[in-house]
Amino acid sequence: MKNRTIFFVSDRTAITAETLGNSLMTQFEGVERERHVVPFVDTQARAETLVKRINDSYTVNEGRPIVFSTFTNDNLREIVAESDCIFYDLFDDYISRMESDLRQESSHEVGKSHGLIDKSSYESRIRAVNYALEYDDGAKMDRYDQADVILVGVSRTGKTPTSLFLALQYGIFTANFPITDSDLDNCSLPRAIKPHKRKLFGLTISAEQLSRIREERRPGSPYASLRTCQREVSQVEELFHMENIPFLNVTAISIEEIAAQIRLTRDLDEIHF
Amino acid sequence: MKNRTIFFVSDRTAITAETLGNSLMTQFEGVERERHVVPFVDTQARAETLVKRINDSYTVNEGRPIVFSTFTNDNLREIVAESDCIFYDLFDDYISRMESDLRQESSHEVGKSHGLIDKSSYESRIRAVNYALEYDDGAKMDRYDQADVILVGVSRTGKTPTSLFLALQYGIFTANFPITDSDLDNCSLPRAIKPHKRKLFGLTISAEQLSRIREERRPGSPYASLRTCQREVSQVEELFHMENIPFLNVTAISIEEIAAQIRLTRDLDEIHF
Repeated sequence: MKNRTIFFVSDRTAITAETLGNSLMTQFEGVERERHVVPFVDTQARAETLVKRINDSYTVNEGRPIVFSTFTNDNLREIVAESDCIFYDLFDDYISRMESDLRQESSHEVGKSHGLIDKSSYESRIRAVNYALEYDDGAKMDRYDQADVILVGVSRTGKTPTSLFLALQYGIFTANFPITDSDLDNCSLPRAIKPHKRKLFGLTISAEQLSRIREERRPGSPYASLRTCQREVSQVEELFHMENIPFLNVTAISIEEIAAQIRLTRDLDEIHF
Repeated sequence: MKNRTIFFVSDRTAITAETLGNSLMTQFEGVERERHVVPFVDTQARAETLVKRINDSYTVNEGRPIVFSTFTNDNLREIVAESDCIFYDLFDDYISRMESDLRQESSHEVGKSHGLIDKSSYESRIRAVNYALEYDDGAKMDRYDQADVILVGVSRTGKTPTSLFLALQYGIFTANFPITDSDLDNCSLPRAIKPHKRKLFGLTISAEQLSRIREERRPGSPYASLRTCQREVSQVEELFHMENIPFLNVTAISIEEIAAQIRLTRDLDEIHF
């Protein structure tokens, strides 16, 4: 087992090839030995270099390399497909099917996918990142009317990375605000975010993991103790319930899953493009 | 034209379906009227609700909706495939081909793709984000030995969003450092980053766009004037050439393309997983 090299290749960024190939490879455990991402294979010379690299990446006793590709250029695709590999090209497999299903020819244009086609969408993502940075951890509170969502939770529950992910990936304007001890003691939302209740989304986490994360920050502190974390987590979940704020326990899930759940709950799918 | 609704659906996050479908749809301009991302279709009831939503999303005079899906569960996939749509399921199309090519059965496990399988990879991404935030804009300089890459450039060339994207998406430890007027006048690199020259990557941009971006920040300032921007851009490119630092003009490209180019140039492909 573990005997194949995986290549993700494209005449553009190879992001789609990598996402596609990653998803599929998770269904075949123990196959992958190593992986290479090769973007911008946009000339014949580069395609030929890639072929050599693929062919050189294994010996006869090993499994042939697997190549996931998304070439918009048919000639370059054909060159790479000639290498000694198991070859899956997303565009080759779908474009002609889609042309017939949609009764429309494809444009065959390179770089439309992750290129800068839609300038307004690119800029809205950058703006969203700037917003997320300015409105991180309750640093600023004057423009919450611009927020699409405001993440809330006790310290170290992943509010900042989630905010940045939503901003960068989807252009969603995301602020985040900490729930502090005094909020928990009063069992009430911080005053600054009360008027924006329908934008709130709570993050929570297991007390054990929270304690472990906080230990890295301030080892041996009461802040990081399991007891404090248990109390804060149970109080904040009670607060979310009481105030009817949707929330998610992020202990065992990825940032992509958190983001997907927030978009779904807050109905943010159609905002960004 | 513009007469079809596009759905991206999955029993998990639908990220792969969305990436795949987005890439393919860019080759068919003018088809898409609106789009919906529907993640977590993981019960029969949800699948049936989705079918109703798909069927209700058009009238007979319009084109049938297009559904891009990635169901690991065959039963749920079959329910959704029965809706009145053009249906493309990535897993259905590839998994059996791969099983035969690899002579290995797939695991058919849900949520492996963007789920929290590899805890160390998840945590390294969060760590990378924390690093990027701490080492943003030269704020800290004591742990550059931990950086995988240090982005350099004059003010407002996209260093911060690019750093965060590399960190969040790939777990690449990315610092960034500004090139200031005095560096440009001396035509030398800032002292703090000189010892880490092989980690540097430069970002540059057209003077016109730079001026426009800076105008938003400080309208009418000398800092934002076209003349200042022209001087800074030409000086910084000269500096990059002289010091032999790879750099990229980001004027007309997306953050995904910038990231792909940095990973390629700095050979950062195999770092993160």
